[in-house]
Amino acid sequence: MGGLSASGAGAGADDAASRRPRPEEEEAARGLDALFRPRSVAIVGASTDPRKLGGRPLANMLRAGFRGRLYPVHPSAREVQGLPAFPGIEDIPEPVEQAIIAVPAAAAPAALDAAIRKGVGVVVMFSSGFGELGAEGRAVQEAMAARCRAAGVRLLGPNCLGVMNPADGVFATFSSSLTGSRAWPRPGRIGIATQSGAVGTYCLTLLADRGAGISHYVATGNEADVDVAACIAWLAEDAATGVILTCLEGCRDGARLRRALALCAARGKPVVAMKVGVSEAGAAATLSHTGTLAGSDAGYQAAFEEAGAWRARSLEEAADVAAACTAGPLPRGRRLGVVTVSGGAGALLADEAAARGLELPQIPEEAQRAILALVPFASPRNPVDATAQTGNDRTLLTRMMAIMLGEQGARARFDVVVAFLAFVAENAEAFATVLPALETLRGEHPRTAFLLAMRGTPEQRRMLLEKGFFLCEDPSEALRAAAALVHFGTRLPQPAPAPPPAVAPRRLPEGPLDEAAARRLLAEAGVPFVAARIARGAAEAAEAAAALGFPVALKVLSPDLAHKSDVGGVRLGLRDAREVAAAYEAMLGAVRAAAPQARIEGALVSPMLQGGVETVLGVHRDPVFGPVAMFGLGGVFVEVFRDVAFRLAPLSRAQALAQIDSIRGRALLEGARGRPAVDKGAIADALVALTRFALAHPEVASVEINPFLALPEGGLGLDAVVLRSG
Amino acid sequence: MGGLSASGAGAGADDAASRRPRPEEEEAARGLDALFRPRSVAIVGASTDPRKLGGRPLANMLRAGFRGRLYPVHPSAREVQGLPAFPGIEDIPEPVEQAIIAVPAAAAPAALDAAIRKGVGVVVMFSSGFGELGAEGRAVQEAMAARCRAAGVRLLGPNCLGVMNPADGVFATFSSSLTGSRAWPRPGRIGIATQSGAVGTYCLTLLADRGAGISHYVATGNEADVDVAACIAWLAEDAATGVILTCLEGCRDGARLRRALALCAARGKPVVAMKVGVSEAGAAATLSHTGTLAGSDAGYQAAFEEAGAWRARSLEEAADVAAACTAGPLPRGRRLGVVTVSGGAGALLADEAAARGLELPQIPEEAQRAILALVPFASPRNPVDATAQTGNDRTLLTRMMAIMLGEQGARARFDVVVAFLAFVAENAEAFATVLPALETLRGEHPRTAFLLAMRGTPEQRRMLLEKGFFLCEDPSEALRAAAALVHFGTRLPQPAPAPPPAVAPRRLPEGPLDEAAARRLLAEAGVPFVAARIARGAAEAAEAAAALGFPVALKVLSPDLAHKSDVGGVRLGLRDAREVAAAYEAMLGAVRAAAPQARIEGALVSPMLQGGVETVLGVHRDPVFGPVAMFGLGGVFVEVFRDVAFRLAPLSRAQALAQIDSIRGRALLEGARGRPAVDKGAIADALVALTRFALAHPEVASVEINPFLALPEGGLGLDAVVLRSG
Repeated sequence: MGGLSASGAGAGADDAASRRPRPEEEEAARGLDALFRPRSVAIVGASTDPRKLGGRPLANMLRAGFRGRLYPVHPSAREVQGLPAFPGIEDIPEPVEQAIIAVPAAAAPAALDAAIRKGVGVVVMFSSGFGELGAEGRAVQEAMAARCRAAGVRLLGPNCLGVMNPADGVFATFSSSLTGSRAWPRPGRIGIATQSGAVGTYCLTLLADRGAGISHYVATGNEADVDVAACIAWLAEDAATGVILTCLEGCRDGARLRRALALCAARGKPVVAMKVGVSEAGAAATLSHTGTLAGSDAGYQAAFEEAGAWRARSLEEAADVAAACTAGPLPRGRRLGVVTVSGGAGALLADEAAARGLELPQIPEEAQRAILALVPFASPRNPVDATAQTGNDRTLLTRMMAIMLGEQGARARFDVVVAFLAFVAENAEAFATVLPALETLRGEHPRTAFLLAMRGTPEQRRMLLEKGFFLCEDPSEALRAAAALVHFGTRLPQPAPAPPPAVAPRRLPEGPLDEAAARRLLAEAGVPFVAARIARGAAEAAEAAAALGFPVALKVLSPDLAHKSDVGGVRLGLRDAREVAAAYEAMLGAVRAAAPQARIEGALVSPMLQGGVETVLGVHRDPVFGPVAMFGLGGVFVEVFRDVAFRLAPLSRAQALAQIDSIRGRALLEGARGRPAVDKGAIADALVALTRFALAHPEVASVEINPFLALPEGGLGLDAVVLRSG
Repeated sequence: MGGLSASGAGAGADDAASRRPRPEEEEAARGLDALFRPRSVAIVGASTDPRKLGGRPLANMLRAGFRGRLYPVHPSAREVQGLPAFPGIEDIPEPVEQAIIAVPAAAAPAALDAAIRKGVGVVVMFSSGFGELGAEGRAVQEAMAARCRAAGVRLLGPNCLGVMNPADGVFATFSSSLTGSRAWPRPGRIGIATQSGAVGTYCLTLLADRGAGISHYVATGNEADVDVAACIAWLAEDAATGVILTCLEGCRDGARLRRALALCAARGKPVVAMKVGVSEAGAAATLSHTGTLAGSDAGYQAAFEEAGAWRARSLEEAADVAAACTAGPLPRGRRLGVVTVSGGAGALLADEAAARGLELPQIPEEAQRAILALVPFASPRNPVDATAQTGNDRTLLTRMMAIMLGEQGARARFDVVVAFLAFVAENAEAFATVLPALETLRGEHPRTAFLLAMRGTPEQRRMLLEKGFFLCEDPSEALRAAAALVHFGTRLPQPAPAPPPAVAPRRLPEGPLDEAAARRLLAEAGVPFVAARIARGAAEAAEAAAALGFPVALKVLSPDLAHKSDVGGVRLGLRDAREVAAAYEAMLGAVRAAAPQARIEGALVSPMLQGGVETVLGVHRDPVFGPVAMFGLGGVFVEVFRDVAFRLAPLSRAQALAQIDSIRGRALLEGARGRPAVDKGAIADALVALTRFALAHPEVASVEINPFLALPEGGLGLDAVVLRSG
């Protein structure tokens, strides 16, 4: 199989408009050809000992048959690992595209300056002891990056593991993964862009186990200049790369990451993303070893969802999904066929399919009869169990697959087939029978994705991958990979995020904002609110209530009280003027007692509403990604069940609708338990309005409408909080 | 390391009372010594071709050096695979303990009868084509089982893959897993009891990859007599078995399974359980290939939780956890230390620890200083990142572990350590340095569990496992295994389920039960209910309301209407006599219009209550496990979020409290969002009362109290439904 590019996975790739590089991508990926595909490499700090850090890149590239020029730089040796050496990089008589700096931190800045003077295109700095150690190291690192920027030189690292490009023999890395015999990377279609070198090389070896090769590997380390996002953008445009696997710890420029992911989507390249530092302890670990602030996990999750990336939760999952993407076509639907040599494994796969939202259409009657004609005691529905009879006749399973995918099974329209073959590949005789039958199936059904769950050696996995079959030993994990393929194959091409709308920034009034001011601002931004009147005394409150209609709610009005109910500042269900007046006095008394410092400006009077579903809409400003929109059902659903969905701003109405639909409690919006369905469009409009407001007001730290009452038609905010930064 | 038995994992194993076998276990496991440890085996249908089904057990046992006697039975050959053959089993001149029957289904009953006449102890029947094909096959199968029972002979299968016992060379199986070179099972401490042969042998090979061996393997197939539960019970008492791995599809006798799991808990043997057929499609697949009704997943989940079994969600997880259990001591607490050669991997492990509820205590200052003295730019807290410096000095990581576990780190009191070592084992020189240091640590810290995340061959994994280290390539999966060890190590010994209480069965009144009757029965059983009066007319309703106090709720009373609100049969918040009388007439009119066939007996009048948390209590009768108690928060939490917990009856108060605490929304019972905490004891008492009621009334199919209002003190049922079976 031709892999992804031949398979139609590149949805949107033919769209001429999307092919036009945008200025941002050019900027981020500018000059990275010299990083990924250098024609000449100097190694500053080259060692004569191939096992030493400074000796490894040279040894690796010699072993890999790098076809460009290699220049060891060594203060005294005339020759290093058989190559002529130079005392300084400036002594090299020819131009140099890439300089590897493999010297201790103290000597690195001078080596960098020499490389800049030499006129290299990119510097790969292995040296550690900079930003990861604290402020002093960070200052040195930033100064080096500034000098590179001024000279138009790109800098990878410092504190990075370098790059690999097996097709061209580039191994500008000191990774210890290459010393093992199992893991020498082969050329392939997966591009790895990772911050952590070790995590990335670990993925590399897991890919090798799965028979998958790589186009490029790059580890960005401290990211003084080149970051993971820039590398993803470069890989998105790289013809050799079909799938991108990225391992992120943090990221300084969320917008750049977002653009890079969007570019991958536009080019039809699946992105498999592993993000670590999610938990408090994990984020602290990330901060301590790279000096990168992780940002909120909500922001990353939103960025991945927006671009249709698959978020892997383990390195094995990342490797499985990336490798599976290179096997063959991406399924165009979620209709799964399961065939097994074991009923137990069939039930296991059916469970996993249900958990992952794949469909198991029943096999048409005619096909069932044909299957039973082969094995009378087979289970012919779906999963199909060919039983242990396959031990006597190895062709049974593939013949059943042919029936399922052929004319008799056509009505089932399978997009993807997972076959549990157990030990077939461990039996040479059996495998020799099954393999050609699989190849025939593959040839006859070029639009079907095939995944095999069976025991197999890395060599067998590689051979099968090249023939268009992903092999995964664990059946549940094979199904997980199938679900990822369906995710990529059924996702519509995503438009790139729209540029932020040109909303004329309008300064907020000075000082903290009370609820009335917050309502006014958000209403102007387009969010509808329940009617409300400000009352400065009990009589005014009763009058307002009479005008609005009973029953009413009364809420204390104060710029200093974001959590009104905590201080007794909310009274609900007041049924007549007398109750309102009494409640006003009682409430203000209670609030004054509970919060004696708070400025109290009166109360807001609003009618009580019936019906609808309480939701929470909010936007918080993430340090990495800017405004992040939050949606959830009110109260306990957010606080106890954490049933919330996040998306980045700017947010389109379609994205907001997808966000609303992604919560677990979605059924509550659609009329569960006899309630009427509510107007999701109105919620989406309010979310879009909130994100526009946040984009237009960079001084706003967060906005929350809690609750926003979603009604069968429309919706109304019942409360509003706008908090300023700092 | 001595493995589990030496490690103190056998919590409760020294309890003399728990060692006394109970009559049920003796019954279930009776005669199974001849299955697991036969001293003589006849193979009926033995083939001269070692690749054929009837040739494989003989070939396997010859290869394994079975030390007992082997008797091939063959109609014509004088010799089979080099052994003297007999024309019939009755022609064997010596006693035979185990007879393997490997003939087609049509010949199997006669072969069985000959074996019975011969006086064998156990028959292992490979032959398929019985219960899995439908009623006719089931009848033949049941007749064979009856003849065995009458003769005191145990029957494994039919349609089963047999047994293995590598220590004794028993391979009474035709599994094709043995033809592969990777998977010949070694003796070890894991006992596998599986229904599906293929799933079980697949686990076997996954265990071999992990370096773990087995004590016994048994596949029960159609379970005409011996079932998985009986095998678990036998393994619980087997000295060679330290851990039990079970793969279940269905089970006919839930009580036996429960007793077997309890016996494992009493013997301190961890049980790793994989249950397939959870989803609708999975359950249908199970039913179609074994003819076993799966029962509800809630029942299995409750059975596993009750016994402290670890429920694995994939075969790899099952293999990881079972293998890890054999490495060394089970941790006595959840305090985890993480050491890595990569900050990224440290953050990944920290995330996984947080997700799995393990603690990452900070390393004491003194130990941090000692770590920084080794590598000044290490991260010394927890996770400890030794950085790529470990590439230059391979002893750094183990020296840091020694600091963490030694005097300087003593205050952190680590129970378990996970070390990410990446590629160390792929580098012979590096591994030769690290291994002795690991062994020293192991020796000096015998109570600490060690798990290594690194690349390793099956041989290295085996060697490390024998030395007391579980090696897992994927770091997330290593952490998952660590969490499973903590689960087993911190679980208190569980008492066996109490026998059902001797409640005098009291017949229910005939016919369907209305709410008043259901309330009365459950109140007698000990569940408190809100006050209620029956009213037969509007005036009576108004009177009742006045007596109970306003506001009140009105509910139609009918034995035919389980879902009253669906037909307009509920009116809430009625504030005075006039409202009550009007609501009575309106409600009865609405109900008569909506359900003209329903018998209407009047209405129930109850006071409306304020505050508290609405919960749902129920019991349904599972076909496998009998009464299963259900607890959840009311309404959407159960229906949309599926936040419910199940336990089996009989239920102790402590078990009920654990059940209540296991829901995700637990915080709502403990005073989240400013509500007062409610009386969990009162909920527990009601659950216990419901299970007792269900045990005493086998004619009851289900009971539901929805809602049960949990209050700060006590709780009250607000509604009751009791449904009869059939």
